[in-house]
Amino acid sequence: MTISSRPSGRSADALRPVTISRHFTKHAEGSVLIEFGGTRVICTASVEEKVPSFLKGKGQGWLTAEYGMLPRSTHSRMDREAAKGKQSGRTQEIQRLIGRSLRAAFDLSLLGERTIHLDCDVIQADGGTRTASITGAMVAAYDAIQGLLDKGLIKQTPVRQFVAAISVGVYEGLPVLDLDYDEDSQCDTDMNVVMTEGGEFIEVQGTAEGVAFSRSTMNRLLDLAEDGIADLIALQKQALGLGA
Amino acid sequence: MTISSRPSGRSADALRPVTISRHFTKHAEGSVLIEFGGTRVICTASVEEKVPSFLKGKGQGWLTAEYGMLPRSTHSRMDREAAKGKQSGRTQEIQRLIGRSLRAAFDLSLLGERTIHLDCDVIQADGGTRTASITGAMVAAYDAIQGLLDKGLIKQTPVRQFVAAISVGVYEGLPVLDLDYDEDSQCDTDMNVVMTEGGEFIEVQGTAEGVAFSRSTMNRLLDLAEDGIADLIALQKQALGLGA
Amino acid sequence: MTISSRPSGRSADALRPVTISRHFTKHAEGSVLIEFGGTRVICTASVEEKVPSFLKGKGQGWLTAEYGMLPRSTHSRMDREAAKGKQSGRTQEIQRLIGRSLRAAFDLSLLGERTIHLDCDVIQADGGTRTASITGAMVAAYDAIQGLLDKGLIKQTPVRQFVAAISVGVYEGLPVLDLDYDEDSQCDTDMNVVMTEGGEFIEVQGTAEGVAFSRSTMNRLLDLAEDGIADLIALQKQALGLGA
Amino acid sequence: MTISSRPSGRSADALRPVTISRHFTKHAEGSVLIEFGGTRVICTASVEEKVPSFLKGKGQGWLTAEYGMLPRSTHSRMDREAAKGKQSGRTQEIQRLIGRSLRAAFDLSLLGERTIHLDCDVIQADGGTRTASITGAMVAAYDAIQGLLDKGLIKQTPVRQFVAAISVGVYEGLPVLDLDYDEDSQCDTDMNVVMTEGGEFIEVQGTAEGVAFSRSTMNRLLDLAEDGIADLIALQKQALGLGA
Amino acid sequence: MTISSRPSGRSADALRPVTISRHFTKHAEGSVLIEFGGTRVICTASVEEKVPSFLKGKGQGWLTAEYGMLPRSTHSRMDREAAKGKQSGRTQEIQRLIGRSLRAAFDLSLLGERTIHLDCDVIQADGGTRTASITGAMVAAYDAIQGLLDKGLIKQTPVRQFVAAISVGVYEGLPVLDLDYDEDSQCDTDMNVVMTEGGEFIEVQGTAEGVAFSRSTMNRLLDLAEDGIADLIALQKQALGLGA
Amino acid sequence: MTISSRPSGRSADALRPVTISRHFTKHAEGSVLIEFGGTRVICTASVEEKVPSFLKGKGQGWLTAEYGMLPRSTHSRMDREAAKGKQSGRTQEIQRLIGRSLRAAFDLSLLGERTIHLDCDVIQADGGTRTASITGAMVAAYDAIQGLLDKGLIKQTPVRQFVAAISVGVYEGLPVLDLDYDEDSQCDTDMNVVMTEGGEFIEVQGTAEGVAFSRSTMNRLLDLAEDGIADLIALQKQALGLGA
Repeated sequence: MTISSRPSGRSADALRPVTISRHFTKHAEGSVLIEFGGTRVICTASVEEKVPSFLKGKGQGWLTAEYGMLPRSTHSRMDREAAKGKQSGRTQEIQRLIGRSLRAAFDLSLLGERTIHLDCDVIQADGGTRTASITGAMVAAYDAIQGLLDKGLIKQTPVRQFVAAISVGVYEGLPVLDLDYDEDSQCDTDMNVVMTEGGEFIEVQGTAEGVAFSRSTMNRLLDLAEDGIADLIALQKQALGLGA
Repeated sequence: MTISSRPSGRSADALRPVTISRHFTKHAEGSVLIEFGGTRVICTASVEEKVPSFLKGKGQGWLTAEYGMLPRSTHSRMDREAAKGKQSGRTQEIQRLIGRSLRAAFDLSLLGERTIHLDCDVIQADGGTRTASITGAMVAAYDAIQGLLDKGLIKQTPVRQFVAAISVGVYEGLPVLDLDYDEDSQCDTDMNVVMTEGGEFIEVQGTAEGVAFSRSTMNRLLDLAEDGIADLIALQKQALGLGA
Repeated sequence: MTISSRPSGRSADALRPVTISRHFTKHAEGSVLIEFGGTRVICTASVEEKVPSFLKGKGQGWLTAEYGMLPRSTHSRMDREAAKGKQSGRTQEIQRLIGRSLRAAFDLSLLGERTIHLDCDVIQADGGTRTASITGAMVAAYDAIQGLLDKGLIKQTPVRQFVAAISVGVYEGLPVLDLDYDEDSQCDTDMNVVMTEGGEFIEVQGTAEGVAFSRSTMNRLLDLAEDGIADLIALQKQALGLGA
Repeated sequence: MTISSRPSGRSADALRPVTISRHFTKHAEGSVLIEFGGTRVICTASVEEKVPSFLKGKGQGWLTAEYGMLPRSTHSRMDREAAKGKQSGRTQEIQRLIGRSLRAAFDLSLLGERTIHLDCDVIQADGGTRTASITGAMVAAYDAIQGLLDKGLIKQTPVRQFVAAISVGVYEGLPVLDLDYDEDSQCDTDMNVVMTEGGEFIEVQGTAEGVAFSRSTMNRLLDLAEDGIADLIALQKQALGLGA
Repeated sequence: MTISSRPSGRSADALRPVTISRHFTKHAEGSVLIEFGGTRVICTASVEEKVPSFLKGKGQGWLTAEYGMLPRSTHSRMDREAAKGKQSGRTQEIQRLIGRSLRAAFDLSLLGERTIHLDCDVIQADGGTRTASITGAMVAAYDAIQGLLDKGLIKQTPVRQFVAAISVGVYEGLPVLDLDYDEDSQCDTDMNVVMTEGGEFIEVQGTAEGVAFSRSTMNRLLDLAEDGIADLIALQKQALGLGA
Repeated sequence: MTISSRPSGRSADALRPVTISRHFTKHAEGSVLIEFGGTRVICTASVEEKVPSFLKGKGQGWLTAEYGMLPRSTHSRMDREAAKGKQSGRTQEIQRLIGRSLRAAFDLSLLGERTIHLDCDVIQADGGTRTASITGAMVAAYDAIQGLLDKGLIKQTPVRQFVAAISVGVYEGLPVLDLDYDEDSQCDTDMNVVMTEGGEFIEVQGTAEGVAFSRSTMNRLLDLAEDGIADLIALQKQALGLGA
């Protein structure tokens, strides 16, 4: 364990308490409330019995994601995107990331001509909403697919591998895991990492905020992320009642 | 008690179980999760230290509301309004209703030049989302105003009266209180009523679905609403720790 | 007759002069200029030989309405909605009300797979534009349907009942019928009522402006509306050359 | 007079019957219903006591125009631009033309820091709506300016010259004046001309529809337009009670 | 040659140096950089193997145009239309003009059921961007059609005639050809003329800026345009390696 | 040098030919055409003498970027974003990346209260448009700043360090530098890297396309990027006439 002076008091390599509550709402085929400390996101997976037009007749499925924040999920109220009439660049960037990340978890050729819509809605934000969204959406999508198997609509599971995501960053010169809002808003580097249960990368998105970062810092950040994601995947499987 | 064959098994004059959970999220000045049976709505009240331009310099406050549904709060997934780039007519109608109803609860001249934004976001829908929103937003707004009093930002409470709302309707010929989704989707008449704790009307919006309704039916519906709203206001006060 | 001090000098239960001019423009299947005093609305009914996708193949028709105001129909010029790129919440609320109200007048299963589009465009506003729209649109739709019968496109009339609409309100404490702009802008309660020729309700939308209203006030308002609407339906039939 | 086989039976150089009705609606500072045969346009002039930001503090006025068609002003119903959320290219082209044409009629430096908004709304279309709009808007703007003079808000008239507009075209090889819809939809060349009372050009917009046109055809079209516009300006002045 | 004091030093009847560079970009079926002095426009022609829905099954083709300016093609930076979320009225007017003008050059019934999309993007603006666009798009469209002939997709050329465009105007009282930005921004009359190689008109769009123009001025402007366009068509043919 | 079977025939660590042409258009304060092989992007830097509202009065400057593609810059024509009325998520993601990357190059507190707008418009796309944009925008911004220094508007250069960007990826199992379109559309991993002249990271954005990538692959990709960016920064300086 590393000594640190993080605002959260956590050690540099410590996740916040993570809870994953399945069946959070009743209509969706998969519905998860995921909490990374004070960050709380509702992730639902909805199954639709058709695919986008570019996939019609190809015998395979699709998975797509949307992301939103309740206007007062944040410290000060944000304008409602539906009222403004457009999604921000940040929102679109995040939902594209969630979609790409989750598509890596599944073999869509085994899903049949249907679409899984993932909706990640932040009800309380305290840093790391996109990584919590990916991690929670994995569980919601798993439940939705389990439902298709249970009903005999598909024979073979499209699940290839679990994926989860975590943020890492440099806070006051120290590489740390899972930034909360206080840390994120003052950090020098912010990196979001999506990995598989096999320890390989799906996405790495690192941004220098003010100060450029060195190759050795990057390596330390990836080490932290690797350990954090292994823990998150264990928590996903535990929530689903699967053996590690 | 009236005998009925409501899908819910409730008597004609029975509310669903109602729960009001304050401090549901941490950033908003008022934050309530309200549940009318399977309908669950997050109502937050946010205080902004300015007023719309039409009120600038007039020394009074303003209160406004927005409403949304998570895409999979419903039986089948709805398109996300932020992604479509516009709010539906239904959404706008509902948020206008919430705003008008709540403005009747407060003396905005005592609020100072600030705005209370009410955000009502449905996370699970099972009928009556607009009436749950109004009833929950009353409590969230009350908490926000109490915060202003506690901080000494206002001296005198702008609360004039409590308001709450309930739906009534005609289900298989029988006037009933608080329709859930199964009842609402098959009813002949649907009426939403907003009343004060003094038993007077703020809003009455009745719509014949298919069959026109008579004056005597209307009277019976208003009787049911009057009783239901009295119960809801008692629940609001209890949630706030106020004597009846 | 009730004594009153209405700005208009009318008695409390008096309608403004109402005129209904058919065949006002030449292209539409039904075209009516309706005037409630200084309020003038062009109501056209257009027949389209197809239905919205949710009704395709069901063998029934549809009826829908749109509403607009010319920019200088009002005391001061309003922005043009087409130029702003969106319809206001008020506009959408009104056109949804017109559509629902008129659908109650017809048995759409007798219309065949076609749509009646009602366009209500206010060329001069002086209070009560939505009630004038509904009352005039009834006549325009009737004419359009008569045209279908005349051409043999339908065999049996889809007209079930006439509907009309009127506003009532509380002006300086007195319940009054058919508010004009001067009255409407200062009234305590504003209620729009849509009724059938059989005296039953299609829509009741009452709003307290500032002061909540009692059950007995509501009863008095509904009495006024009932009489006013009976008169309007007589005028509709007279304009159409039908016996009462 | 030229012999012709125009669908309208008119001679090649004949205008349709033109009527100009002032004070058509009551709120606008100038309000005109202009009819060119079956084409009917409401033209209102609204005075606003401010100028666009690019003119602030420059001591001069501004004049701008908007154009619209009621959805069923046309043979078959058009979509409502407010509902579609945007004005078509055609609409924008026409309202820019109306604005430019009318600005040529006035010396805006004599108007003070105020804006005249011209709204031209077509209630029935039968060809030539843009030329009727310009011709009618001239009269509405004149009335609005007369009102400013009457109230002493301006001392000197900003009216420099009357302008009017007419269409000309080649129908079955023959140059003709003032095309109606039947002629316009089959003509080879369509030209809109805006001229001053002094017989000079403000705008000439000629378009070959299918067949290019020669210099001599153009000359004949301009001759026709010149005569037609002289007649229209006489009618404008007569409507305003001015001597020729 | 006419003596003049044009800012450009050109004689009244002189074009700016015109260059037409084919194959400017590699993906488009036709791609031209056209320069009229400091005005530089990329014109591409793209062939799409389908037609708009209003032409489906009619056995003929379509041609359509779009126009844009890079944000800093102009003296001061303009807002990007894609970021603003709409095309200006000016943009729409210009692209409609380009499309109409080019459709006159081709017999679309010989094109088969395919669409030619012309994109005219201004990378540097110095007056006359719309006339350069039309003149360059002619060459790009020619190349695209030649490609269809070369591949045997069509048997007979749809080219009916060459078209080109030029601006003329009145600068300090003198009619001049091909206005650059300095001249255009101060001229009294601005006219854009589109003609065929046979010397007939496709479009004439003349606008008085401030001062109305007489019939004799118009005649002089058309003379200038006629000569200028003959020169431009010779340059188009030369660029394409065609004999005059 | 690594042996490879890249479609381009390049060795794994070879850049495409890169050219940087300054003063490409005449109005912008900085204007660069940058070419990475077949990818051609116009990058302009425009200076505006004001800052966004969130920076007003803070005495510092701002830098922001926009990105676009001409509709036929690509293999098949894309819809024009201005015509569709919105920028895609991809476009917004890229322009946010360009802005963040370039802000790292400058000390905005030395720029004064002015904004540098970078416009990166792709005229021909062949892979790597975002990295070419960043690399070219650096040069355009440098020129714009040099202009401010030359005019004495700022005293001290805000340039902190050069930045450039390159893509790396895994093509048929082999890590390679600077993917062109043929490689990019078939690669397993795609990573965009932005670095400073000091060899530190500004942005790293890696995405697995289909197959997750290992830590050792990532290390190899970063090695390639590091070398490629050093070469690009040498080319930037050479274009600007600066010693290495």
